[in-house]
Amino acid sequence: MDQQQLFVKMTMNAWEIQISRLDKFFKSLTDEQFKQEIAPGKNTIFYLFGHLIAVNDNILKVIGAGERLYPQLDEAFIQKPDKSGLPTPSVSELKSYWETVNKKLTEAFARIKPAEWFEKHTVVSAEDFAKEPHRNKLSVIINRTNHNSYHHGQLILTQKKDNG
Amino acid sequence: MDQQQLFVKMTMNAWEIQISRLDKFFKSLTDEQFKQEIAPGKNTIFYLFGHLIAVNDNILKVIGAGERLYPQLDEAFIQKPDKSGLPTPSVSELKSYWETVNKKLTEAFARIKPAEWFEKHTVVSAEDFAKEPHRNKLSVIINRTNHNSYHHGQLILTQKKDNG
Repeated sequence: MDQQQLFVKMTMNAWEIQISRLDKFFKSLTDEQFKQEIAPGKNTIFYLFGHLIAVNDNILKVIGAGERLYPQLDEAFIQKPDKSGLPTPSVSELKSYWETVNKKLTEAFARIKPAEWFEKHTVVSAEDFAKEPHRNKLSVIINRTNHNSYHHGQLILTQKKDNG
Repeated sequence: MDQQQLFVKMTMNAWEIQISRLDKFFKSLTDEQFKQEIAPGKNTIFYLFGHLIAVNDNILKVIGAGERLYPQLDEAFIQKPDKSGLPTPSVSELKSYWETVNKKLTEAFARIKPAEWFEKHTVVSAEDFAKEPHRNKLSVIINRTNHNSYHHGQLILTQKKDNG
């Protein structure tokens, strides 16, 4: 394994750990439980589920690995807060989106060659990237892994035995 | 910047972002506010503050960069849950520990040469490391960065305007 491969593997390992924890969490819930707030007056599990799907789906575009699958989620789950009154998909639709996004990402990640991970992502300019080569595609995965952890910490509060 | 340096920089950037967000959060609170629970019946801010200090302090030992500064925190903030009744330091003592741990870690991280980050950490065996070279010192930072994000997501729930 060369160095680039090793870095990619380290980053992917951390990503997979977070996604598998969230996957286990979401799969443990009944549709009814998605209505629960993580704390009184805070976001529902449903909102955070849609939010994570939308943000993770956007990774495809940011790393230039394909088009968004569900850009229609952004308004209700990123731009607007929870309980905005906007129409949303059902829990079972979101569950299917979650599966599909994870599958697409796994496939896309597998196609990207180690050296390509160190190329610039689509949101940084060529000029900035020349000065800041750490703003590459792999750094997007590192940041989004932390974003998943951040909300996982919140979601877990809805469990009786929690780690919060 | 060679590839090892670049990857170390990416990992350090992610670490620093999380620590600076937590630092800003903890510094915004009065001593009284540390008693608040992140959600009804859940951990207090005080407990999570001690918990993050203890876990982050332990990084020094795991990466072989020095001895623990505050091993006495582990019982009350890692092994036992919140409200265990064990004696704890005061908020201002914890604030001072938080500063000291962050300073020590910054200094230790700066001393570690890029290639050293890819050596095995102290908790993995030489045999396992030979098969799994991604279980190196830098992977400890990646994992602990996610641990900080996880609890940051919870802490932020105590703010009126939150991101949870």
